[in-house]
Amino acid sequence: MRVLHTADWHIGKKLYEYDLYAEQVAAFEQIRQIARQKKVDAVVIAGDLYDRSVPSEEAVSVLKQMLVKLNIEDKLPLLAISGNHDSARRLGVGDEWFEHNQYFLKTELGIDAKGRRTLEPVELGNCQFFLVPYFNPKASRTYFEDDNISTMAQAMAKVVAECESYFKPGLAHILVGHCFVAGSSHEDSEVSSTVGGLDEVPVSLFKNFDYVALGHLHNHQALLADNARYAGSPVKFSLSELTNQKGVYIYDTETNDREFVPLKDPTPMVSLTGSLDELCQPAKYNEVADQAFVFVNLTDRQVIANLVEKLRACYPRLVHIERQNGLEGITQTPSVELLKEANSPLKMTAAFFEQTQGLTLSAAQQDYLAQLLAEIEEEQ
Amino acid sequence: MRVLHTADWHIGKKLYEYDLYAEQVAAFEQIRQIARQKKVDAVVIAGDLYDRSVPSEEAVSVLKQMLVKLNIEDKLPLLAISGNHDSARRLGVGDEWFEHNQYFLKTELGIDAKGRRTLEPVELGNCQFFLVPYFNPKASRTYFEDDNISTMAQAMAKVVAECESYFKPGLAHILVGHCFVAGSSHEDSEVSSTVGGLDEVPVSLFKNFDYVALGHLHNHQALLADNARYAGSPVKFSLSELTNQKGVYIYDTETNDREFVPLKDPTPMVSLTGSLDELCQPAKYNEVADQAFVFVNLTDRQVIANLVEKLRACYPRLVHIERQNGLEGITQTPSVELLKEANSPLKMTAAFFEQTQGLTLSAAQQDYLAQLLAEIEEEQ
Repeated sequence: MRVLHTADWHIGKKLYEYDLYAEQVAAFEQIRQIARQKKVDAVVIAGDLYDRSVPSEEAVSVLKQMLVKLNIEDKLPLLAISGNHDSARRLGVGDEWFEHNQYFLKTELGIDAKGRRTLEPVELGNCQFFLVPYFNPKASRTYFEDDNISTMAQAMAKVVAECESYFKPGLAHILVGHCFVAGSSHEDSEVSSTVGGLDEVPVSLFKNFDYVALGHLHNHQALLADNARYAGSPVKFSLSELTNQKGVYIYDTETNDREFVPLKDPTPMVSLTGSLDELCQPAKYNEVADQAFVFVNLTDRQVIANLVEKLRACYPRLVHIERQNGLEGITQTPSVELLKEANSPLKMTAAFFEQTQGLTLSAAQQDYLAQLLAEIEEEQ
Repeated sequence: MRVLHTADWHIGKKLYEYDLYAEQVAAFEQIRQIARQKKVDAVVIAGDLYDRSVPSEEAVSVLKQMLVKLNIEDKLPLLAISGNHDSARRLGVGDEWFEHNQYFLKTELGIDAKGRRTLEPVELGNCQFFLVPYFNPKASRTYFEDDNISTMAQAMAKVVAECESYFKPGLAHILVGHCFVAGSSHEDSEVSSTVGGLDEVPVSLFKNFDYVALGHLHNHQALLADNARYAGSPVKFSLSELTNQKGVYIYDTETNDREFVPLKDPTPMVSLTGSLDELCQPAKYNEVADQAFVFVNLTDRQVIANLVEKLRACYPRLVHIERQNGLEGITQTPSVELLKEANSPLKMTAAFFEQTQGLTLSAAQQDYLAQLLAEIEEEQ
């Protein structure tokens, strides 16, 4: 059996102000092609299908079309779980009806309408799939009726023990999970509160599984264990993923081989360094596709009027500007001593502005500030 | 074939600050019982399953359990449409997978993944069901490729014409819709903007259907046409529904009989009139169940300190208080002439307060008001 492993679609996610639907749909179509070309027998989506617990109507519509295409049109068995970005309840709508078409979706630890525990495996071909939705220790305390669980490592140990109790010898055992495995590297675009610390799970827990299809981290090389991988997101969600090769894993239960199949970047992401003059030379900007997402590291130090407009004339999808060398006359950390010398809120604000922006307040700005401070004082 | 017709569940709706989940679940369980006792062959839900386009996780969970019980546990075919309170996209999640289990859900005019138009009928037994989700004229212009549609009457005429083009003789023809039929009476709890005016549809349009199962209006007697009924909501959502008998219709395609089967009020709703003294007599409040929703028409005219607390001590689920005779010294409509005489915003506000509340502004209130007005002036 050949299993395509993907994760972290984050449908509805934005790159700063830019929607990524076009990129997400283009990446999805490549995944669909790969599934066809590689003749996979099932597709695993390891959580974070949506970017938000309350997805927009557009996100709902886009994800639905993807799932309809894979499962109904292409007749591919689907095995999916919710991630920390999904609302288990909202993603779980309809799940009781999906199974007849070999779409297995698990979003909560519990007991379903047919009396089955979440961790009971889905058997497909020569394989047992254990679908472990994202959960918090509290949910696991209820599921296991054990009030002593306080960390994810403890909870996951109980999860693994229950899964192993269902193991049938002679079948391949695949766990699908959405969690942070200790020792993995991570990116800006993942939610940091759920990365590290109490949420860490040691990879050794999973030693008895043939393959562990993970979601949560967006780089497919975040964890390079023998039997466990993060698929990574199909689309780049932050500058820190600039050089990430996106793709999917294909795991073959017969050979125990795991192949990484790359995806082409639907939209290039570019990071440019230079002065405004340099970046606005035709020779420079003609090298960058109009639709590319552009991050700029500006070397100029002076204040430049209409900077965004000027850069956007050359790079229509300018995403973000960093001032590599800071701004002229600007101290990154304002001097606490100087601020203390200012003996009124107005003077202190003016000093802060001068130190951080390198500019003195104009008369109009001073008036506005004085008025604002007066109003605040009145309210208090 | 016997069809149970219900509508306007509005899962997640509140009665002032009170959740109605317990009432909605209790009414649902009665509907389930009726379906069993009357041996119905299908259940129609004519829109407004949710109360809001973005239902809470609890509402999602409650509705899901109801649909699982009816369709998966009781194996009853379900025919449902979205109403104006539902988000078509959000309610429609999973619909492509529901049909295999005879759960037919239509939420948008369009063409589905299998290339079928929304208005193509669902055939069950000796019956053709035409599921017409709530839509606006714009959606119908796209569906019919006709830019001349501007009113609901025009749109519904096209809907009916398309439905009739699919009529098979010898079968019963049932239309399920969510709209305002001209001449119907309506209640406070329905959204008034979608009632009346441009949204009206004449009942004569539907003359060729054996039965028209409507949703939108919450009183089952809102329309008493030969072949068309509103099921009404299963639960009372406002004081104006105090004397409404809630229930469901059962339509028998063999006999063309239509029976109204009443539901017991899960929680009584009571409207009481009297003075605080009268209402707080044990003989009075002992007659009212603790869990009853209580609307009070207070006959007292004086200002009463801690009125809500006093009433709630006798009626724990006090919903709302009206002052039947107004408040002492209070003019319901302030005199425009008197207000005009006040030559400053402060004086005008004080005059308005005096006329409507029967009280003069205290010194602290005058100070606060003066400060507020000064801030407003500054902002302008």
